[in-house]
Amino acid sequence: MTDTSLRRMPGFGSDNVAGVSPAILQALAAVNDSPAPSYGADEVSARVEARLSALFEREVAVLLVSTGTAANALSLAVLTPPWGAVLCHAESHVENDECGAPEFFTGGAKLVHVPGDRALIDPEALAKEAAYGRGDVHRVQPACVSITQASELGTLYSLEHIRAIGAVCREAGLGLHMDGSRFANAVAALGASPAELTWKAGVDILSFGATKNGAMGVDAIVLFDKAKADELALRRKRAGHLSSKMRFLAAQMEAYLEGDLWLANARHANAMAARLAAGLKAIPGVEPQGKVEANMLFVRLPQNMIDGLLAQGFRFYTGRWDERVARLVTSFATTEEDVDLLLEAALRLA
Amino acid sequence: MTDTSLRRMPGFGSDNVAGVSPAILQALAAVNDSPAPSYGADEVSARVEARLSALFEREVAVLLVSTGTAANALSLAVLTPPWGAVLCHAESHVENDECGAPEFFTGGAKLVHVPGDRALIDPEALAKEAAYGRGDVHRVQPACVSITQASELGTLYSLEHIRAIGAVCREAGLGLHMDGSRFANAVAALGASPAELTWKAGVDILSFGATKNGAMGVDAIVLFDKAKADELALRRKRAGHLSSKMRFLAAQMEAYLEGDLWLANARHANAMAARLAAGLKAIPGVEPQGKVEANMLFVRLPQNMIDGLLAQGFRFYTGRWDERVARLVTSFATTEEDVDLLLEAALRLA
Amino acid sequence: MTDTSLRRMPGFGSDNVAGVSPAILQALAAVNDSPAPSYGADEVSARVEARLSALFEREVAVLLVSTGTAANALSLAVLTPPWGAVLCHAESHVENDECGAPEFFTGGAKLVHVPGDRALIDPEALAKEAAYGRGDVHRVQPACVSITQASELGTLYSLEHIRAIGAVCREAGLGLHMDGSRFANAVAALGASPAELTWKAGVDILSFGATKNGAMGVDAIVLFDKAKADELALRRKRAGHLSSKMRFLAAQMEAYLEGDLWLANARHANAMAARLAAGLKAIPGVEPQGKVEANMLFVRLPQNMIDGLLAQGFRFYTGRWDERVARLVTSFATTEEDVDLLLEAALRLA
Amino acid sequence: MTDTSLRRMPGFGSDNVAGVSPAILQALAAVNDSPAPSYGADEVSARVEARLSALFEREVAVLLVSTGTAANALSLAVLTPPWGAVLCHAESHVENDECGAPEFFTGGAKLVHVPGDRALIDPEALAKEAAYGRGDVHRVQPACVSITQASELGTLYSLEHIRAIGAVCREAGLGLHMDGSRFANAVAALGASPAELTWKAGVDILSFGATKNGAMGVDAIVLFDKAKADELALRRKRAGHLSSKMRFLAAQMEAYLEGDLWLANARHANAMAARLAAGLKAIPGVEPQGKVEANMLFVRLPQNMIDGLLAQGFRFYTGRWDERVARLVTSFATTEEDVDLLLEAALRLA
Repeated sequence: MTDTSLRRMPGFGSDNVAGVSPAILQALAAVNDSPAPSYGADEVSARVEARLSALFEREVAVLLVSTGTAANALSLAVLTPPWGAVLCHAESHVENDECGAPEFFTGGAKLVHVPGDRALIDPEALAKEAAYGRGDVHRVQPACVSITQASELGTLYSLEHIRAIGAVCREAGLGLHMDGSRFANAVAALGASPAELTWKAGVDILSFGATKNGAMGVDAIVLFDKAKADELALRRKRAGHLSSKMRFLAAQMEAYLEGDLWLANARHANAMAARLAAGLKAIPGVEPQGKVEANMLFVRLPQNMIDGLLAQGFRFYTGRWDERVARLVTSFATTEEDVDLLLEAALRLA
Repeated sequence: MTDTSLRRMPGFGSDNVAGVSPAILQALAAVNDSPAPSYGADEVSARVEARLSALFEREVAVLLVSTGTAANALSLAVLTPPWGAVLCHAESHVENDECGAPEFFTGGAKLVHVPGDRALIDPEALAKEAAYGRGDVHRVQPACVSITQASELGTLYSLEHIRAIGAVCREAGLGLHMDGSRFANAVAALGASPAELTWKAGVDILSFGATKNGAMGVDAIVLFDKAKADELALRRKRAGHLSSKMRFLAAQMEAYLEGDLWLANARHANAMAARLAAGLKAIPGVEPQGKVEANMLFVRLPQNMIDGLLAQGFRFYTGRWDERVARLVTSFATTEEDVDLLLEAALRLA
Repeated sequence: MTDTSLRRMPGFGSDNVAGVSPAILQALAAVNDSPAPSYGADEVSARVEARLSALFEREVAVLLVSTGTAANALSLAVLTPPWGAVLCHAESHVENDECGAPEFFTGGAKLVHVPGDRALIDPEALAKEAAYGRGDVHRVQPACVSITQASELGTLYSLEHIRAIGAVCREAGLGLHMDGSRFANAVAALGASPAELTWKAGVDILSFGATKNGAMGVDAIVLFDKAKADELALRRKRAGHLSSKMRFLAAQMEAYLEGDLWLANARHANAMAARLAAGLKAIPGVEPQGKVEANMLFVRLPQNMIDGLLAQGFRFYTGRWDERVARLVTSFATTEEDVDLLLEAALRLA
Repeated sequence: MTDTSLRRMPGFGSDNVAGVSPAILQALAAVNDSPAPSYGADEVSARVEARLSALFEREVAVLLVSTGTAANALSLAVLTPPWGAVLCHAESHVENDECGAPEFFTGGAKLVHVPGDRALIDPEALAKEAAYGRGDVHRVQPACVSITQASELGTLYSLEHIRAIGAVCREAGLGLHMDGSRFANAVAALGASPAELTWKAGVDILSFGATKNGAMGVDAIVLFDKAKADELALRRKRAGHLSSKMRFLAAQMEAYLEGDLWLANARHANAMAARLAAGLKAIPGVEPQGKVEANMLFVRLPQNMIDGLLAQGFRFYTGRWDERVARLVTSFATTEEDVDLLLEAALRLA
């Protein structure tokens, strides 16, 4: 922990090792000039709701929280009763990386896995699972679906894919939640509009992530149907996620949206992932694992290359996927130099 | 909401309408220069734990969260099983102002009221309640006590009072939690050391508040017995309160402790409350309600004075206490000018 | 525990020390002659629902469970969200004697006390509490009311009293639950019809008790609005309260209703309480505490009389109320001889 | 529902369509002769605990409940914290047939699937899953294992198999629960002693089922380590599973144990399954699915045979397993005539 030279090497472990976009940091100072009503009754919070309504081409209700886990778990809690099933992929963040937050917030709902390639739910498999156990008092009742965009493997739901899932949900009467902690990376890559990729395709609630993409600590729960806003506000308070000085969360989000910083940051991160992928592909012994769609890539590396890179202070994860497969994540803060530094080091180890 | 001239008048509604201490804001920028490990594995977080250990004269475990409600509810969750009773005053924040967060985090424990003057638990009444229902399977089992320092009425537990409560807890085998969202104001007023006012008097867990006293959004859960730290870490994650970019919470806390900013801020807030109280006392028709111990005061005002002050844009609460009783809260950001402005306006309305 | 001569003395501790009405025991054997569909799909269960619909002069949904605590907690769970307040008397069974079952089943709702004489909620106090905190995100939201008929002090809500409470609930949009574990005793005493005393006065859900009044272990949740029946069925299963061999619960209930056994049993219990009260009143040193309305009475006794009666093997509770106040409960199984035995013993000790 | 001639045909749908063993029914009447202390303080309850201690060759704590779902969910609740993982087979009753009762009782623990043939957990796969995520705050923590004996497919864990699982649990510090709703059938088939098949092999808590094997509605939670008894007693009350007239549950259990009725009933049920299997095997077109180990068998039948048997009023399940696979369950009440009736009908349809 103490060898700080190591700590300064580029980190590809996650996009959350990056700091904060300068514009967002400045926005905090800008709202600090006078007292303001607390708990979200301030003007910045109101502007953020208006701004997200404009972005999504529809009046939305917005609840800001400080973590993506809170955004996801609160969203699911208004979409399922305690005896409901939340249909999700086995590789999803809500299933694997939140220490049971969905179960806690929902009062004990069950996360049921729906298969699909590349960590993306298959609509036909979903339709089957959506019908299972309906009306049978011995079984949890299918209540909602949660999809991750971009997924935990860095893959993307295409517009058509989301529409197909939305259609299944409508047919079966299930709510549809999108975990968009990397929504910006998905929008940047897919080209479709935020509205098309969400409510127009059937999404009811979006966790609109900012933290991983340049904010300090704020994600927005975007309700396309405002009817659940009151319940969600009570659930947020009860979970300790109603910030008293809410304007400082709102200011982050406002700056994130201003001038499409969110998209610029995501495009940059995606570009850095593409640069990294292209470079690695050219290195002998490196085996890419699937194509790179957003800001995350998986490569199988020779063991000595893994060991050497880590020893030099580069940071990334291995061991959770197939043997010798490494995950590399880029962020808004990743520079071309960072990428090239890694590529050169890898080449030397090849 | 749109008449901003009104909004710029001094706010005495709560200490959370204030912004952020400049030094704390600057600290955010200072930790933004390089990537850092996420989820609290950063160096700033480690320094904060060391610093709080020094402040409390003992090795403590520290978990940072972004709201006081989260700090309180998580603390109680490790001190009571779901079938436990949390003994607290009927006027406490955990009972009245958290939308049932303690019930949510504990899995449904029951908050049981213990009487006492001035929103402070009476040790004798506590001893009686602590024995009630023990071993009776039909009743929730007394599990812990929560005291608020300073209280929701701005009153303080003296050192002896805390010791008396601590003794009851030890005797009865109950955990003792202190909701210290205004702990700084209490320490500033009482003169005793943080260690004396907490673990030396029997407190097991402290919600060490910073948000109300100059931070942007961070409170520390301070565990005087580190044995519960692992459980608490899991509960924090599960509740969506593990910030990925934790260093920005840690940086606030570090700046808050640096050079005893926390005490300086609190002393100032207390002094402003004293100035306000002294001024109001001299105005005809104003009836002080109890003495002022920290940064909060209650006064009965003539109705026309209440109406007039609110009409001029001053902000404070009435209606929740006795007739025509107003609560006025000062903060680190309250200036002498703010106080005098209110006093002059009140005098004109007398 | 082993001196069985003591055990055979009349027990006035509770109506649940009595055994089972002979007709109910016989009914168990009667449904044991052939296999039957499980989980309530049997014919007896269907007949019970029809029979209770007839009794209450309206089509009701009926869910049988084996304990009164389950009936109450499940009923409340469909009337309040986790962030709701259940308004009840401080002396109610749901508050004091169920080890937090309402909190468990509701996901952490808060039981809020409404005052009123003789353990009966005061409608005006209720109206005030029903309005408190509405729409304030910091507070639990008033969701439903629970009244106990007969109350834990053996007192009764008159028809007008229930109507007044029902009116407050309708006005405030609150659900109304009646804990009727001693509903039979109330109906027997009040003379009004079951329909008048419940849904016609505004009650939404009734815990229709049978266990305390001659059954072995069955209470019915009676839903006057069938809309919640599906949710309740899922909650019942999830709570482990869906009996596989449900016909044996249904058979108890059918026998309980047959020929108005339920009323006959309750009338007898009430009569025994009246006999006991009349007899005690005539004994020097015995001070009746309030009038006797159902099958429960409270009397202040000389200490030597308390000690003497307990020493002789009589069973009743003291210590939970005012000094030297004893609670005596009669049941369907209490005989005139039982009563007279106690009276004679008390007289000898006077 | 009304053609009662159909209803009288032998039911092979489940062992819970059977009624109650005559000796158990008689035992209810036998304890109805006098008042008795409520809530389990009666003599019969004490005798049952002693009797089960003798049966298991060790002092055990016993808590009686009225359903198997309650027995399982309460057992798991004392073996896992809310953020724990309960490792179980995907085909287990706790996962599939209890509407999320384990999640409800545990406060939201996660049921994690461990693979294995024939619905039996594979010890090696278990060891791997037991190590997964340990100490990682983002993941639920492996806390306990639940195995079903006999399984939902009627298969059995051999003594060695249980020992292997017990060894993994000890090694990994996990609690071990056995869902023994058909424990009697397993003991009858395996020949080993109850002690060998449970605590001697590492089982901490057993759901000792009686309801499916001749009782009216009682299962025992058997704690081999009594340390959790107090917590479990509070959880039972809080869940509405503490019967006031507990002696009637205890009387069932006492009669069930008396003269080894439980084993006699199970042996008979197993023998009927064997007879049924042998007969079906000889019928053209019938394809047995695996060997028959306890009181349940699976056979693939021609569609016309399925249709014909159901039309004649025989009862069994299809549709939940592979195509045209039927599950047939026998019970203590199944007669040779019942079996032969089915065999003759099937032969006519072959």
